[in-house]
Amino acid sequence: MHEFELIKNYFQKLSKKSPSALDLNDDVFFDKKNKLAVSVDTYTEGNHFINFKKPELVIKKIIRSSISDLICKGVKPKYYFISGSGNKKSFSKSNLSKITKSLNQEQNRYKILLSGGDTVFSNKLSFTITSIGFASDIVYRNNAKINDDIYVSGNLGDSYLGLLVLKNKLKLNSRLRKYFINQYFMPNIHLKLTNQIKKFANTSIDISDGLLADLDKMINNQKLSYKIFLENIPISDNLKKILDLKKLSKINYVSNGDDYQILFTASKDKMRIIKKIASNCRIKVTKIGSIQTNAVKSSIIDHKNEEISLKNKGYLHQF
Amino acid sequence: MHEFELIKNYFQKLSKKSPSALDLNDDVFFDKKNKLAVSVDTYTEGNHFINFKKPELVIKKIIRSSISDLICKGVKPKYYFISGSGNKKSFSKSNLSKITKSLNQEQNRYKILLSGGDTVFSNKLSFTITSIGFASDIVYRNNAKINDDIYVSGNLGDSYLGLLVLKNKLKLNSRLRKYFINQYFMPNIHLKLTNQIKKFANTSIDISDGLLADLDKMINNQKLSYKIFLENIPISDNLKKILDLKKLSKINYVSNGDDYQILFTASKDKMRIIKKIASNCRIKVTKIGSIQTNAVKSSIIDHKNEEISLKNKGYLHQF
Repeated sequence: MHEFELIKNYFQKLSKKSPSALDLNDDVFFDKKNKLAVSVDTYTEGNHFINFKKPELVIKKIIRSSISDLICKGVKPKYYFISGSGNKKSFSKSNLSKITKSLNQEQNRYKILLSGGDTVFSNKLSFTITSIGFASDIVYRNNAKINDDIYVSGNLGDSYLGLLVLKNKLKLNSRLRKYFINQYFMPNIHLKLTNQIKKFANTSIDISDGLLADLDKMINNQKLSYKIFLENIPISDNLKKILDLKKLSKINYVSNGDDYQILFTASKDKMRIIKKIASNCRIKVTKIGSIQTNAVKSSIIDHKNEEISLKNKGYLHQF
Repeated sequence: MHEFELIKNYFQKLSKKSPSALDLNDDVFFDKKNKLAVSVDTYTEGNHFINFKKPELVIKKIIRSSISDLICKGVKPKYYFISGSGNKKSFSKSNLSKITKSLNQEQNRYKILLSGGDTVFSNKLSFTITSIGFASDIVYRNNAKINDDIYVSGNLGDSYLGLLVLKNKLKLNSRLRKYFINQYFMPNIHLKLTNQIKKFANTSIDISDGLLADLDKMINNQKLSYKIFLENIPISDNLKKILDLKKLSKINYVSNGDDYQILFTASKDKMRIIKKIASNCRIKVTKIGSIQTNAVKSSIIDHKNEEISLKNKGYLHQF
């Protein structure tokens, strides 16, 4: 998939005339005058989701992934459009019932409205979701300040464990199996933070590709680097239990993407308000590191205060 | 593809809470409060376009098809988003150069801005285009009045001839071959009518599926029918020449879709203003029939003033 990043270069030129396109270097489009934010993403079987055996869960995952792009920028999603390509089997009556039931649940949970779309025949199953919201302003990418603290919402890694379970690469008891699979399909995204995040964040992104990849993306046009403390990366009690039990290395399980948690930076003097808002919203928000000048390289520091070699970044973009 | 129409039934329930979704029974979504109009369509290889041998032309066709949905409703398109699924061959550097060159031409021609999108790997090539525009109001579907005149812009059938040529089902000299192929890939859509159509049209639709299919769609929730005069259906001199030369029956060549002309109804007293605006915009607009009560069946009348049997509707939805 890496080569597909190159495509952006071709399209970037065309988008230059539209300042709202943010050089195609953000996850959203934002037209400030019309207060309009738009996110468009395509999800394909075998790539963004393993298969369609559980349509009711796949559909939740892609809806949450789509609106997560808006939520992490401080935009409340309002409308969504689904364009589905698939065959008769994918869109059987039974599957359609499951899909619409799930969509209805997501609509109620996140106060979003199905507003249109398209359905075409294809032997390759894919969905394109367009999510739209309105906001006077957004939190932009590439707007971190030097010495900013770096925060993340919720826990990381659970979704990746769920993927490993689904791929039969990890054997767990049925309780844990269910827990991680649910985390994979139904990431706990934080609508409540949407209206608050503009009060403290300088820059933000949702973690879809993986913590480190998304840290890079968040500051990719800035002459900055990051320093992250592995110990501070928040994980669930369930994940902690498994890492301990199976003697697995934390760094290999917390940056594999599909977390849909909010990664953001804020100046140090915002720490108090962040703690207060997080507590009021009952959302876990954890400080994991800080932004530094790119005179020093980006680094991850382990529990012995030693740098973990970033050559190991190969575990990024597994999907 | 017919069975895919059924899918709408499943999604229609979900869209009920959003009046802007227009019951998913229009080609656009329109949020009057936010003045926002959105159209989402997916185009797949082998279905909406034959193949990707001429990416520079295919891309023009799908962009025009997408913005045509807004234009026919009186909405000036402003932003478009492309989500492309394809493999390395489809998105080779050579193809990407051709695609971006074409997009640039379309951007200049229709004053639209590439605003985002996505590119994912898939062995099945498809594009989802989201087009967005702003307007205080639109021309809705299902708003025809009894005794309205029915009009159509431009000419019909050229695009279908182009398709037949591309499929080697029709042999023509190189000049005509080029003419019809260009009409197929680059339908002549009428941006200039956008700001005018609300002055006279009661209801409108763009002709994508075919004149008769789209006439049915335009009034599908109304207790109305239409009466069309075959002789009045506008065709190009080139198409007329071929029909005469090869002794082909006009009815089989004017309702096969992909025309992207505007079909609309207007009350009889608007005839003068329609003529004037069409003349000022230098756009051919032709009266082809009228709306009647559904006490009488919809009909097409031939040059002998006889009804053409609608059993022959089989030539609809050829794609």
